[in-house]
Amino acid sequence: MANSTHNAILLISCPDQAGLVSLVAEFIRRHNGNIIYLDQHVDTEHGAFFMRIEWELADFRLSDEKLSKLFQEDIASPMQMNWQLHYSDQRPRVAIFATRESHCLYDLLSRHQAGELDVDIPLIISNREDLRSAADRFEVPFAHFPITPENKAAQESAELELLDSHTVDTLVLARYMQILSDSFVNNYPQKIINIHHSFLPAFAGARPYHQAYERGVKLVGATSHYVTAQLDEGPIIAQDVIRVSHRESVSDFVRRGRDLEKVVLARAVWAHAQRKVLVFKNKTVVFS
Amino acid sequence: MANSTHNAILLISCPDQAGLVSLVAEFIRRHNGNIIYLDQHVDTEHGAFFMRIEWELADFRLSDEKLSKLFQEDIASPMQMNWQLHYSDQRPRVAIFATRESHCLYDLLSRHQAGELDVDIPLIISNREDLRSAADRFEVPFAHFPITPENKAAQESAELELLDSHTVDTLVLARYMQILSDSFVNNYPQKIINIHHSFLPAFAGARPYHQAYERGVKLVGATSHYVTAQLDEGPIIAQDVIRVSHRESVSDFVRRGRDLEKVVLARAVWAHAQRKVLVFKNKTVVFS
Amino acid sequence: MANSTHNAILLISCPDQAGLVSLVAEFIRRHNGNIIYLDQHVDTEHGAFFMRIEWELADFRLSDEKLSKLFQEDIASPMQMNWQLHYSDQRPRVAIFATRESHCLYDLLSRHQAGELDVDIPLIISNREDLRSAADRFEVPFAHFPITPENKAAQESAELELLDSHTVDTLVLARYMQILSDSFVNNYPQKIINIHHSFLPAFAGARPYHQAYERGVKLVGATSHYVTAQLDEGPIIAQDVIRVSHRESVSDFVRRGRDLEKVVLARAVWAHAQRKVLVFKNKTVVFS
Amino acid sequence: MANSTHNAILLISCPDQAGLVSLVAEFIRRHNGNIIYLDQHVDTEHGAFFMRIEWELADFRLSDEKLSKLFQEDIASPMQMNWQLHYSDQRPRVAIFATRESHCLYDLLSRHQAGELDVDIPLIISNREDLRSAADRFEVPFAHFPITPENKAAQESAELELLDSHTVDTLVLARYMQILSDSFVNNYPQKIINIHHSFLPAFAGARPYHQAYERGVKLVGATSHYVTAQLDEGPIIAQDVIRVSHRESVSDFVRRGRDLEKVVLARAVWAHAQRKVLVFKNKTVVFS
Repeated sequence: MANSTHNAILLISCPDQAGLVSLVAEFIRRHNGNIIYLDQHVDTEHGAFFMRIEWELADFRLSDEKLSKLFQEDIASPMQMNWQLHYSDQRPRVAIFATRESHCLYDLLSRHQAGELDVDIPLIISNREDLRSAADRFEVPFAHFPITPENKAAQESAELELLDSHTVDTLVLARYMQILSDSFVNNYPQKIINIHHSFLPAFAGARPYHQAYERGVKLVGATSHYVTAQLDEGPIIAQDVIRVSHRESVSDFVRRGRDLEKVVLARAVWAHAQRKVLVFKNKTVVFS
Repeated sequence: MANSTHNAILLISCPDQAGLVSLVAEFIRRHNGNIIYLDQHVDTEHGAFFMRIEWELADFRLSDEKLSKLFQEDIASPMQMNWQLHYSDQRPRVAIFATRESHCLYDLLSRHQAGELDVDIPLIISNREDLRSAADRFEVPFAHFPITPENKAAQESAELELLDSHTVDTLVLARYMQILSDSFVNNYPQKIINIHHSFLPAFAGARPYHQAYERGVKLVGATSHYVTAQLDEGPIIAQDVIRVSHRESVSDFVRRGRDLEKVVLARAVWAHAQRKVLVFKNKTVVFS
Repeated sequence: MANSTHNAILLISCPDQAGLVSLVAEFIRRHNGNIIYLDQHVDTEHGAFFMRIEWELADFRLSDEKLSKLFQEDIASPMQMNWQLHYSDQRPRVAIFATRESHCLYDLLSRHQAGELDVDIPLIISNREDLRSAADRFEVPFAHFPITPENKAAQESAELELLDSHTVDTLVLARYMQILSDSFVNNYPQKIINIHHSFLPAFAGARPYHQAYERGVKLVGATSHYVTAQLDEGPIIAQDVIRVSHRESVSDFVRRGRDLEKVVLARAVWAHAQRKVLVFKNKTVVFS
Repeated sequence: MANSTHNAILLISCPDQAGLVSLVAEFIRRHNGNIIYLDQHVDTEHGAFFMRIEWELADFRLSDEKLSKLFQEDIASPMQMNWQLHYSDQRPRVAIFATRESHCLYDLLSRHQAGELDVDIPLIISNREDLRSAADRFEVPFAHFPITPENKAAQESAELELLDSHTVDTLVLARYMQILSDSFVNNYPQKIINIHHSFLPAFAGARPYHQAYERGVKLVGATSHYVTAQLDEGPIIAQDVIRVSHRESVSDFVRRGRDLEKVVLARAVWAHAQRKVLVFKNKTVVFS
């Protein structure tokens, strides 16, 4: 199921102007690329243009290097584009951070094992020992970094080193119950994916199911978002809800909410791994 | 479709204790009532018991008056019950408040006309003239009370008088764009149903779709709740959401949100009219 | 809210081949059209390409006539395209067919009245008199065509004439309880929109809520589709479901299902009116 | 999280008649049981009554044996009740059947491991070897029974013996790609839970996602049901759907459908394990 074809994926954002789609499509066509996916979006409020375009490289006439150079010169520079070029066979290298709750971790590992997620998972990091056995079951290295107010800076440095040594580029916080420092977060801009167990912006912060229960809502939610310096305020990638009623206690919310958290987090990780997410002004474009 | 059978509906809340269900059921059975609905709920956190029980009065041996008296003496007093007794053929008398948006108003009027809602609608009140023609189409009296900071107290008094003269007992705010004063609200405790166009507690206050758009959420919602002195903080009766994406503008949110608002408000009004809603500690029990 | 801008909307389907997007976009750009919407889809299974593209005509250098001619010659012919050209200010002219249930009819009329639907509604047709008053409330002409096995052919002919005289191009069956003859249907290919009160293909045919109740499903649905000669088998435009439980009777299904039917039918009519629907091999592409 | 309290759970179905709730509640109260859950349902169409009642045994004055005897004599016999008595600390013993797809298996094992499911899982059975490693990861015995038309009867006999030796009482078919013989099924009436990857009764039988894709539906579903002699026609326990569009291929349906299958199957197994499901006339009552 894993993606082994060698396609190019271009993610573009730039000021909107006439002819952008045709310009890019024509560029690819000219060099004999067969476009298999094109989705674009115009944010008319901000006059911003976004595109994801994917093409087969089999008969493409430019080397990877040449492609980058030419695209920058011919198109990106004149059009003031921000762009990322990915190859479908270069998978994100993901470290999963978790604490005590196993459901999101098991879910990601099972999906990975079944070939559902086009990522590598070289590492699991935790501030506790509880989930070591889960990591062991799936034969993923597990690193324990207990965090206290005193050792936090030092531990985060050690984590960064370890992540570097595994060439990790993406972090997934699978119910990780520690707040990352700003300086840590800044190492992975739009590369840290969190799951928060509420329908953000409702019930940010601690114990969201308890907050939801207190307020007497009729739906509870889960939100996956990129982590920024502002807690629970980063760009939202995916959200979903389930219906609840007065019959349900907080522990029912917790139990049923787990299914939401698993699915919503996995959906976000999948979209990220497929290079389908662009961030603009603290919001996401998630291509279909 | 309107309910013309003469059933009794008892709504009960009291401290939880053993034998409550059997006590009430036995009382009804003893006087030859045929129970056709019984739903109960125990809030174990607060030790509170709630029940809705409905029975046919055809062969019931107590007059309405006797029933109230006996139930109070035999059961409610010893058990410290709060209780309401309704009859299925006594429909709530509803005044609809609206301003400029017609969708909720038309929806309620159409449902009423089709016999879907067991209520009477003797009156529509608005702070503007825009919806008079909608009222006229359905032949419901329309009263115009323009509100300014200066005349608000006087106009609310006049409204209260008019509502009284129509023996209105329930108010439905169908996108009514005025904030009712506390003193006005206090006249109708748990009798004023509002629709707010967000998933509360997210995006309380003004322009919730704009707030949602700014935050970049992937779902937008609607919430129907009883109005209390705290704006948008009353007990929630019904909520629902729809999925949105980056492709949608604020005006798409507004357009698609209307369907939500209509359905969620109608669901709340229906449950209220069926005497299925109990309020406890700013939350609702909505019997099935 | 109604669309009064003069935009061009092109709907295209053709065999897939490299460069189609750029070809069409370039054509529009060359004549100074400002593209404000582009969505395309490739059905890789059948090698088919679909596109909806909309552009402002304010500064466009081709007359409507010239546009059609040039597009056919320069692009459509060489690329073997099927295409439709619409203008955003030419609204579909819709006749609503209904029988006895008023909810879909009222819903469409209310939406139209509120400016939500970019269509004209010159006519309501029914095989019964029940809904005349609903038509009257919204001042839409109502034509009564009672249908018997004997008079069906004659009545359908008369209906066709009447529809013609009102230059109707789209028919919406809003719970119309008669089966249209094949020859009647053939007059409006992909122009008759029906609402069926089940999740098709489950529970096609008569009394779907009863069928659903008998089967004990936990969700009931509604489906809006284009009508073809095969009953309930035309291309699906929109579907949705609601959760039900053992507590609900058939009449609860009917009551709650009405909300679904209204919303699903309106969604399909809206997409059709926005020229967002293309049919291919009995399936629809519904552009976002 | 596992349930270790010693509560009694009574599931009752019988002809409806006045006073049933009070009769049973009074019986429990009389013997000093503290009722912590009571939910009842009347099927008015068939005049049938259903109840689930749970009470604490801490201060209950009847032994388990005495309870059964007395309840039968005093209540069940005169009222013609079918009843089951369960104890909350007697967990179902579940064998999981699977074939090649791992997602449902991993999901159930992970939930079990996390303490989410009040069942024991002494055994995994498969007609292939593919999932042995999944079983190994969670240290559950794995038995391989390859099935051919020739050996099917013999293999099923061997399976029955093995199930017996593990005192298994519940079978969960987690995407098990073999049809069980009628005689096998008859050994576990209302004790075999299957997941079918469609919204039944739509797309019964083989390759439901392909069928759904061909029909062009806008939602795909999953259904968990008890297995009966009629393939895919047993009583439905849980169903859910997700929205799909023309953009999605069959393999997208398969990929996204897995999330549905996992959640819907787990929901059904959970309800079964909590003794919340009663079957009547090929439909289920699933208590809340």
